[in-house]
Amino acid sequence: MRALTALPGHAGSHRVEERPPPVAQEGELLVEAVAVGVCGTDREILAGDYGWAPPGRERLVIGHESLGRVLEAPTSSPFSPGSTVVGVVRRPDPVPCGACAAGEFDMCRNGRYRERGIKEMDGYAAERWTVPEDFAVAVDPALGLRGVLTEPASVVAKAWEQIEAVGRRAWFSPRSVLVTGAGPIGLLAALMGVQRELDVHVLDRVADGPKPDLVSDLGAHYHHAPMAEVTAGLQPDIVIEGTGVASLVFDGISGTGPYGIVCLTGVSSGGRSLQVDAGALNRELVLENDAVIGSVNANQRHFELAARALAQAEPGWLDGLITRTVPLDHYEDVVEPDPADVKVVLTFGDAHE
Amino acid sequence: MRALTALPGHAGSHRVEERPPPVAQEGELLVEAVAVGVCGTDREILAGDYGWAPPGRERLVIGHESLGRVLEAPTSSPFSPGSTVVGVVRRPDPVPCGACAAGEFDMCRNGRYRERGIKEMDGYAAERWTVPEDFAVAVDPALGLRGVLTEPASVVAKAWEQIEAVGRRAWFSPRSVLVTGAGPIGLLAALMGVQRELDVHVLDRVADGPKPDLVSDLGAHYHHAPMAEVTAGLQPDIVIEGTGVASLVFDGISGTGPYGIVCLTGVSSGGRSLQVDAGALNRELVLENDAVIGSVNANQRHFELAARALAQAEPGWLDGLITRTVPLDHYEDVVEPDPADVKVVLTFGDAHE
Repeated sequence: MRALTALPGHAGSHRVEERPPPVAQEGELLVEAVAVGVCGTDREILAGDYGWAPPGRERLVIGHESLGRVLEAPTSSPFSPGSTVVGVVRRPDPVPCGACAAGEFDMCRNGRYRERGIKEMDGYAAERWTVPEDFAVAVDPALGLRGVLTEPASVVAKAWEQIEAVGRRAWFSPRSVLVTGAGPIGLLAALMGVQRELDVHVLDRVADGPKPDLVSDLGAHYHHAPMAEVTAGLQPDIVIEGTGVASLVFDGISGTGPYGIVCLTGVSSGGRSLQVDAGALNRELVLENDAVIGSVNANQRHFELAARALAQAEPGWLDGLITRTVPLDHYEDVVEPDPADVKVVLTFGDAHE
Repeated sequence: MRALTALPGHAGSHRVEERPPPVAQEGELLVEAVAVGVCGTDREILAGDYGWAPPGRERLVIGHESLGRVLEAPTSSPFSPGSTVVGVVRRPDPVPCGACAAGEFDMCRNGRYRERGIKEMDGYAAERWTVPEDFAVAVDPALGLRGVLTEPASVVAKAWEQIEAVGRRAWFSPRSVLVTGAGPIGLLAALMGVQRELDVHVLDRVADGPKPDLVSDLGAHYHHAPMAEVTAGLQPDIVIEGTGVASLVFDGISGTGPYGIVCLTGVSSGGRSLQVDAGALNRELVLENDAVIGSVNANQRHFELAARALAQAEPGWLDGLITRTVPLDHYEDVVEPDPADVKVVLTFGDAHE
């Protein structure tokens, strides 16, 4: 079977290669790939800037935003051949930390987790893959190709869960959320904000393309304006920062209303130095009882919340997030992002039609 | 009766003046003052930099860290004449926000709260004061003068409650806490860390005076070293920042271990500009699932937690926090802090002996 692999640390080293078909071990599902979503982390791996091959191997099968159809399942399994399924990304170390032992490997304390398609485990960009049923999530088959959005939606479902847990530390009745960045994470964050009946605002640097319509189709507000201007008018209860742009991070923190919660989900590079009025920032955090939380990755529970949120979304709106589908044979087309892209998806078998 | 008042906005305007003795209204306690603690906020008011007089009045009775003995109590009250009592500082607006209506006026959303001795309400630095019994907290009479530490301890009890609520959003089993600043807030934070059986570390800029011994007497560790050096070795699970010094705030945020929680309790002035590697800071917050929370003030529940924590502390250790007692007649002596001070207390009646 064919798989898309890369040599971590080497830009342009990716290729589709022939690999022996995987065999399901006890408790595992054998899955036929339908699609794999491509995100910034994949492009970092393709650029040689990120990623680790499995121990003792040179190349890594990439892909962590999965979608597949079950070919074989254990007899006692809740899955059966034909089930639509998504695989969880992160796996705890065999000697788990306390969080990993509690199933919260997204909160791993010792950093010894592995991640499919990213860190020391082959990913899902292969025609067939296996997954332990405990690390697989059932997806509504009616979602079709849209089910490939489950992994990015799981990251967003975790962020929302964290925001709400932190909010509930005292009286909490949020009205508004400002999302920065109208990429897949930002748009899915906006979707889940609308599903929570909040007043949802999305800020992005582009004024055209599909994003403004995707936001207004949700009944949310699109802003193409300086952050400080937007927060001054809105005083949002919640900010979900999805860009990793340092100035937006700090403008978000100082722009919330009292008891504001900022959830950071975008990973920035180091070395982005910024002149900050640290005194004013600290003063505002203290006097307003504000909170800033970082949120990364997702566990099984968040994948399930994500699958539910997608199943409740307008199918046509989700279709609008997938702006390009590229069959495996044309994998070179996913490497360079197009400015009009929201989510680019690599398809397997006949999923492209 | 005599009261210590100031003209907000006017440095050096403080004086002891004669005021008509207060009369308890329905549901109120009449209290004879025992002591009032003096903190940075009081000194800001005395310096003309902070504070608001009650509506329609020019001068403000200062004092928010109270301790008194009940003279009169309503018949159905849990308090009776002779009870030792502390008054809560903040009061909700008559038209409360949602948080104030829920009793969480420390989390007020609309800023229309009042604060005794600080904002639009006379304080406790008077020979007699009244307080609604709903805003009074019983204190163990065995604490004696040490009961005046209840208000600063309430701020710390709230901080710990917030830290633990935020920690419980996922698997949480903290081992170590680093407290910055060995003033009353920092030392009480260290006490409550020890009461939680954590490995407690306190960092301060002084190398001598009573602070190092107060910390080691708790069984905690005193550091007089650069912050980054301390965090590198410790990777604390929790940082309680009590200084408001901008560089410590940022060093604290980047110095925690994975799933670190930084609680900011120190109020800094604005205009403290700092060059920050904002990209690295954001990246670490996200990838480690870190949290930063601001915490200010305290509600009734936190005063009760504080009274309990003080009652469980070693009396001799608490005595060591009160480094100076000054009778009301010598009020000028509290205006200027002494480098050897931890907590300075103004005493009323015969409490000085």
